Amino acid sequence: MGKKVVVIGGVACGPKAAARLKRLDASCEITIVERDSEVSYGACGLPFYLEGEVPELVDLTTTPVGVPRNAGFFKAAKGVDVRTLTEAVAIDRKKQVVTVKNLEDGSEEDLPYDNLVIATGSSPVRPPIPGIDLANIHCLKTMEDGAAIKKAMAEASGKKAVIVGAGLIGLECVEPLINDGFEVHVVEKLPFVLPALLDEEMAVPLMKHLQAKGVHLHCNDGVVKFVGDDGGRVIKVATEQTIIDADLVILAIGFRANIGLAKDAGLKIGDFGIKVDAHMRTSDPLIYSGGDSVESFCMITGRWFYAPMGSTANKHGRVIASNIAGWNSTFTGVCGTGVCKIMGFNVGRTGSTERDARAAGLEVITALNPGLDRPHYMKEAKLIHLKLVAEAHTGRLLGVQVCGPGEVLSRVDTVAALLSRRGTVDDLFEVDMAYAPPFSPAMDNVIVAANIIQNKMDGLANSFTPAEIKAKLDRGEDIVLLDVRMPAELEMMKLPYDNVVHIPLGKLRSMVDTLPTDREIVCLCKISLRGYEAARILIGHGVDPYRVHFLDGGVVAWPYEKIVKG
Amino acid sequence: MGKKVVVIGGVACGPKAAARLKRLDASCEITIVERDSEVSYGACGLPFYLEGEVPELVDLTTTPVGVPRNAGFFKAAKGVDVRTLTEAVAIDRKKQVVTVKNLEDGSEEDLPYDNLVIATGSSPVRPPIPGIDLANIHCLKTMEDGAAIKKAMAEASGKKAVIVGAGLIGLECVEPLINDGFEVHVVEKLPFVLPALLDEEMAVPLMKHLQAKGVHLHCNDGVVKFVGDDGGRVIKVATEQTIIDADLVILAIGFRANIGLAKDAGLKIGDFGIKVDAHMRTSDPLIYSGGDSVESFCMITGRWFYAPMGSTANKHGRVIASNIAGWNSTFTGVCGTGVCKIMGFNVGRTGSTERDARAAGLEVITALNPGLDRPHYMKEAKLIHLKLVAEAHTGRLLGVQVCGPGEVLSRVDTVAALLSRRGTVDDLFEVDMAYAPPFSPAMDNVIVAANIIQNKMDGLANSFTPAEIKAKLDRGEDIVLLDVRMPAELEMMKLPYDNVVHIPLGKLRSMVDTLPTDREIVCLCKISLRGYEAARILIGHGVDPYRVHFLDGGVVAWPYEKIVKG
Repeated sequence: MGKKVVVIGGVACGPKAAARLKRLDASCEITIVERDSEVSYGACGLPFYLEGEVPELVDLTTTPVGVPRNAGFFKAAKGVDVRTLTEAVAIDRKKQVVTVKNLEDGSEEDLPYDNLVIATGSSPVRPPIPGIDLANIHCLKTMEDGAAIKKAMAEASGKKAVIVGAGLIGLECVEPLINDGFEVHVVEKLPFVLPALLDEEMAVPLMKHLQAKGVHLHCNDGVVKFVGDDGGRVIKVATEQTIIDADLVILAIGFRANIGLAKDAGLKIGDFGIKVDAHMRTSDPLIYSGGDSVESFCMITGRWFYAPMGSTANKHGRVIASNIAGWNSTFTGVCGTGVCKIMGFNVGRTGSTERDARAAGLEVITALNPGLDRPHYMKEAKLIHLKLVAEAHTGRLLGVQVCGPGEVLSRVDTVAALLSRRGTVDDLFEVDMAYAPPFSPAMDNVIVAANIIQNKMDGLANSFTPAEIKAKLDRGEDIVLLDVRMPAELEMMKLPYDNVVHIPLGKLRSMVDTLPTDREIVCLCKISLRGYEAARILIGHGVDPYRVHFLDGGVVAWPYEKIVKG
Repeated sequence: MGKKVVVIGGVACGPKAAARLKRLDASCEITIVERDSEVSYGACGLPFYLEGEVPELVDLTTTPVGVPRNAGFFKAAKGVDVRTLTEAVAIDRKKQVVTVKNLEDGSEEDLPYDNLVIATGSSPVRPPIPGIDLANIHCLKTMEDGAAIKKAMAEASGKKAVIVGAGLIGLECVEPLINDGFEVHVVEKLPFVLPALLDEEMAVPLMKHLQAKGVHLHCNDGVVKFVGDDGGRVIKVATEQTIIDADLVILAIGFRANIGLAKDAGLKIGDFGIKVDAHMRTSDPLIYSGGDSVESFCMITGRWFYAPMGSTANKHGRVIASNIAGWNSTFTGVCGTGVCKIMGFNVGRTGSTERDARAAGLEVITALNPGLDRPHYMKEAKLIHLKLVAEAHTGRLLGVQVCGPGEVLSRVDTVAALLSRRGTVDDLFEVDMAYAPPFSPAMDNVIVAANIIQNKMDGLANSFTPAEIKAKLDRGEDIVLLDVRMPAELEMMKLPYDNVVHIPLGKLRSMVDTLPTDREIVCLCKISLRGYEAARILIGHGVDPYRVHFLDGGVVAWPYEKIVKG
């Protein structure tokens, strides 16, 4: 007789663990219990079903060759029993049984186990805001949610939608609504969008993009109340600052791990989810957990956090199966990698933001490197903003943020690969990245960013961040902003300050003596490469290096007010 | 007085070394000598100028903001003297002088140096084939070549082109010619295209793509003679096997390092270029070399090879500048990364091919993993073929090849990042790659490939490569090809052999006993995932594991004859 294994939860981690375990040990008797009617579906595809990129909801529930991934499929192809509409209601760890309830007839049954897998996933956060139970206020998590929102979109006569929360899911819902003719409002508590993914200055280009596409952003604002009509349908969203008409609301405030069952069973729970060791084992050695129900170890900060991702859930399932089969397999952590695409604008992140790294007590050094994703002579070249974060003293990579209409995936994945190997900016410079003009510039954007940090660490030039310069100017500090661009470039875009002195780089060597001899000089250009060059020229001409800085990221990365022509 | 530094060669490595050195040490007096009239141009953009993606040739010679990168620019912006149309003709290492010749007036001059940088680049291979000097036979290396080919394309009344050599440059020339209405023939000595980048089975999808686009491939064939008309213009190309009409020939047989000057000066020369240490120093400690003129150390095989790339040349320049400035900077090697895009088909490679790894004496284990680049439910999902190569005993990553209409860059760069850190397939599994449906599947293609190799190393299932199965079938071995796909899939594409037994995966568990008990069983499906599952089912049902295999990559990766419908 083989082991009896019960898997609670049938979306990602659970089915993966079950199927692989059966492959590793055919003698196992494995049962998946799932309280919903569907198992093993592509939940991440729901926003793209709303958008129409996924033609039918059923496409999310089939294999690549069109076979429905239902109980029959799991039995026949995988050798695993699946019970849908069945909820696990209690775990008796002493008796090693899970009590499950048939949600159709209400009957209960005890399933014995030798090993148990808790893959109960997560639930959307639904705060107790007045009116939150009105009709047409939806979360987006399950197939049912997807169907309900699609229906509500079709029925919303006023075509006014409010998305609460500017995280990944919230922003992924923007495009389907805009494309469908909705007036879209996004309400976000924090001062900028994607606050869990980006530093503020990196969110600015995305916010400008959203606004250019007609999205109404309400940052630094929170929902106070949902107002309904007589029929109990939402018609207005009252925020701290305004009142917005709405006939459809999508709540996307985030997800929380479903820990109830584990907690009731006395398993150890962390701040963000079920606690597991590197073998995905809970505090009970017979019980494993993975996917959205566990908290994740951050390979960058060494701290625990919540990072529910379909990619990670599948890896957890694999590791859990190996361990139940008696191997010794580990999953050491994640880097908080995320990526999304919103109306032609890409955003990617891996590792820590500067803010998170500092909050974890790390000393950081950063590079802002906005630039084209391909050589400038290629018509297809598009802008990407890039921020690389490293540990100040060692150059250990801590993270990268990339956003813009250009390519972000390869840059994020390259840094993610190095993060998991504890690579440094020196290592990043050495990566033999793929280069050809249709794909990337000879010196890839992320390698240039590594060079910028190397230069800073080598003491070649000091820089100020846009925030630091802004603060100086706001304080009225008498600094010189030395803009070394061509005259035509200044016409296109410039900083709105009187402090600007303009000397094109090509004339700087002969005009160093015309600069003030007692004030701080901050060199800048479009993206900061010439700004850095200018700083080196000044220092080379004997200007006190302590007076010479360059502006990180130049005018393009300047997130505050600027004068733009055309 | 600062150091006097002479830089021979003004395209990529040379200008980079010169400009950075001036930034590091403003006291240096730096002179770049270049025998051509242009410096610091984007030579890699030439095929895209032919195609029209780069509007004007001059775009390759300007900075991103449109400033010409000429002698005036280098003097004013970089503080570096540039002498174009000036050839270095001799190096006197004892006197520390370079003799340079003004190509306009023939005068010679000695330039003294404290340090010398040899960045003489490479030249296209032009074998002594009869008729090779006929008009309209062009290489593609310099701006002049680009202009000449563009002119020849416009003037070629017959619109018949022959490309000799199916390497990166040769194939990059296909698209502009096809788009311009040319009949295009590609002649390649080796049995398949991109032979330096790909293993044979990975080149097959590209060859089919080229043929579908109307390109005439002549592999396993070589040019014997170019035939001209009375005006000395090429009209025919005679190969070992045929005669092809041509009014334009592009020679793209490869490049060789320009080592003459270094060799004459008594510097150590390797099998493929100038020999340098990890500091990019030649055998004379005052002389550095980088870019296309040096040979490269392969981080995978530990052997020297020739890998001329614009990306590497820029890195060399940076390291050389640091070392001349008195720092201690190293460049340890490359992975042979390359990428290209040919009429909507992407090809990328990093590390060693299986063939090269075996030739270097390494024992390899491989995975073939063809699949969609995004979740199958996304309409935009496109196929990529993927081959991962690792060291058999340790799982150390050796390389990856990716090709298809789908996304290849992020997969190549992820593996490249791990290669430079000596990562294993276990490390690849742990990389927290960016996942969202518009970009990638939950389990990225390259991570699935890592899992396949892990499974093989863990002894879960043995596989045969397509070549091994083909050989068995050709020898008439009585094996069972167990195809576990759905009936409708078999209709679409199948192997043309009588040995096929068809049992859909869902029925296999109940039909194991119907299979022969004495013959080798090779399980297969579309891409091999179900084939692997089938192998595990058979083993789980007690079939002797030594008789059970799966076919690497399934029917999709089968590079030989197959029956395809529609």
